[in-house]
Amino acid sequence: MPRIKILIPNSIDLHLTADADVVVYDIDDAIPAEHRDADMLVVWHNSAERLRDAARHLPRLRVVQALASGTDAVLAAGFADDVRICSGRSLHDGPVAEHALALILSTIRRLDTLHDAQHDHRWDEDFIEAQGAAASQALYTLAGSRVTIWGFGSIASTLAPILQLLGAHVEGIARSAGDRAGFTVHADTDAAAVLADTDVLVAILPATPETTGLLDASTFGSLKRGAVFVNVGRGATVDEDALREALESGRLRAAAIDVTRTEPLPADDPLWDAPGLVITPHVAGNRPVGSSALIDDNLRRLAAGDELRNQVHPSSAARA
Amino acid sequence: MPRIKILIPNSIDLHLTADADVVVYDIDDAIPAEHRDADMLVVWHNSAERLRDAARHLPRLRVVQALASGTDAVLAAGFADDVRICSGRSLHDGPVAEHALALILSTIRRLDTLHDAQHDHRWDEDFIEAQGAAASQALYTLAGSRVTIWGFGSIASTLAPILQLLGAHVEGIARSAGDRAGFTVHADTDAAAVLADTDVLVAILPATPETTGLLDASTFGSLKRGAVFVNVGRGATVDEDALREALESGRLRAAAIDVTRTEPLPADDPLWDAPGLVITPHVAGNRPVGSSALIDDNLRRLAAGDELRNQVHPSSAARA
Repeated sequence: MPRIKILIPNSIDLHLTADADVVVYDIDDAIPAEHRDADMLVVWHNSAERLRDAARHLPRLRVVQALASGTDAVLAAGFADDVRICSGRSLHDGPVAEHALALILSTIRRLDTLHDAQHDHRWDEDFIEAQGAAASQALYTLAGSRVTIWGFGSIASTLAPILQLLGAHVEGIARSAGDRAGFTVHADTDAAAVLADTDVLVAILPATPETTGLLDASTFGSLKRGAVFVNVGRGATVDEDALREALESGRLRAAAIDVTRTEPLPADDPLWDAPGLVITPHVAGNRPVGSSALIDDNLRRLAAGDELRNQVHPSSAARA
Repeated sequence: MPRIKILIPNSIDLHLTADADVVVYDIDDAIPAEHRDADMLVVWHNSAERLRDAARHLPRLRVVQALASGTDAVLAAGFADDVRICSGRSLHDGPVAEHALALILSTIRRLDTLHDAQHDHRWDEDFIEAQGAAASQALYTLAGSRVTIWGFGSIASTLAPILQLLGAHVEGIARSAGDRAGFTVHADTDAAAVLADTDVLVAILPATPETTGLLDASTFGSLKRGAVFVNVGRGATVDEDALREALESGRLRAAAIDVTRTEPLPADDPLWDAPGLVITPHVAGNRPVGSSALIDDNLRRLAAGDELRNQVHPSSAARA
């Protein structure tokens, strides 16, 4: 059996130990002619155009290993249907959970408004009063709050126990109901009832045909009045006009999103100035942790004919 | 034995169940003449002047129960030396730990600079590059970082396990070395060596004569270059000129403080504009949790002649 030839991108440092022909390629150029016989392609920060180009010019390709958590761009690139596509989702559990927590706490404690007050050299007495008042103090802490995570996969399983340590009651919404990692997860058909009791909604949904625009006016309208919303999944899952309107009407108290429908978000997009909205530029999971080990593992599995890790296409098992 | 008479402030809702004469007083007025025979005084948000007034006019006072975590203002008010003073420290463990975490994550992930970018409608590509670069990506996450908590009491014991879940290696500094809640705590005489390896220094120190100005140019100079600093203890523990210089020189990468030497911080204080500094207006622990239960417990202990909870004066046992 010939050795596996794997192309790894120049956009990340990788140190592979599995037995294979390893070639580094430039993600900004076409794959060189002499390497178009590769069996496996690792992608990280490749443009849509470069992905489409690779899909056309690697006839012997058997596996695309993405290092990103979401594989929507790879799935859209036009690889042959028998090319297996694996995600890097497990590599981002820690970093994305950490960023989600940063956004949740910043939103709950309104670090954004305090930052504006600091800019004005203002010790914010209104904030101090609201946070201390019996009627509103519960809004400023996770202790006793109800957090719902929509999209309950491995990132949620990392995040939920931390929120629980902070005193939050955590449940989930996913395609199917059940118990995941000790947390109650409701079927998305029951979402409205769950949202009515939700103080903090955290979205960690992949971009798929089913999730496109899933979080819409009806979602925000179902939420408890004054809830906060955080999105560290994909921008395509949110109706951004509905999000802006929910913030403008006060239906949502505040929100924080790391992802937008169009990235980078154009400078003239009205989302930038939506009241109480924090936007970070898709930086939650910008550092895959353990990439080399995942690639090595999948190289060995490919050589042995075993099932691959994180395979998302062709789909074999139910996914969160 | 006559019933205990307790004065409770109008600045917080309390629901006591212990057997006592309970009188609500206005924290902005002098204690009415007919209530100057009180045995116990509960204070919350009282001004220094009102505290001094109470210290002069309550001759039968036996206990002052503060609901704040720090009792420096009460200790300075001039109560007779045999009046026992109890803190509300346990009431703030959760809220202060939560705020500390919010400030740590905001500082590590530079939500402040991203907020400024959002204000300019700018998708911050420089940030994205720095966060993804091999040389600097470790700065943007708690995973693998070394966090040192200076002042390792009950708030630190609440905070440390959460930081650990996020992948940080947590140790402490306190007056005496030892193991607290499963974490290694070093004596403050060894601080310099500990700081040299510290990525994130979190100060949770009370204001006492020994801690005044303790965190100074030498402290910041001992820290690993590019470390971040977070203070949720007391402003008096920090030399603010040294903090500003450490930020201006780049010795500190960023910092976040919830407390300042003078509160409110005057509008013309140069600290407001120190580079990379986030200031919040002493809102970490603005909501004591479980106040009524603590007061009830200490009322019963007072009646029974038992040791009081959270007693800080006269000092009986070693404190963190």
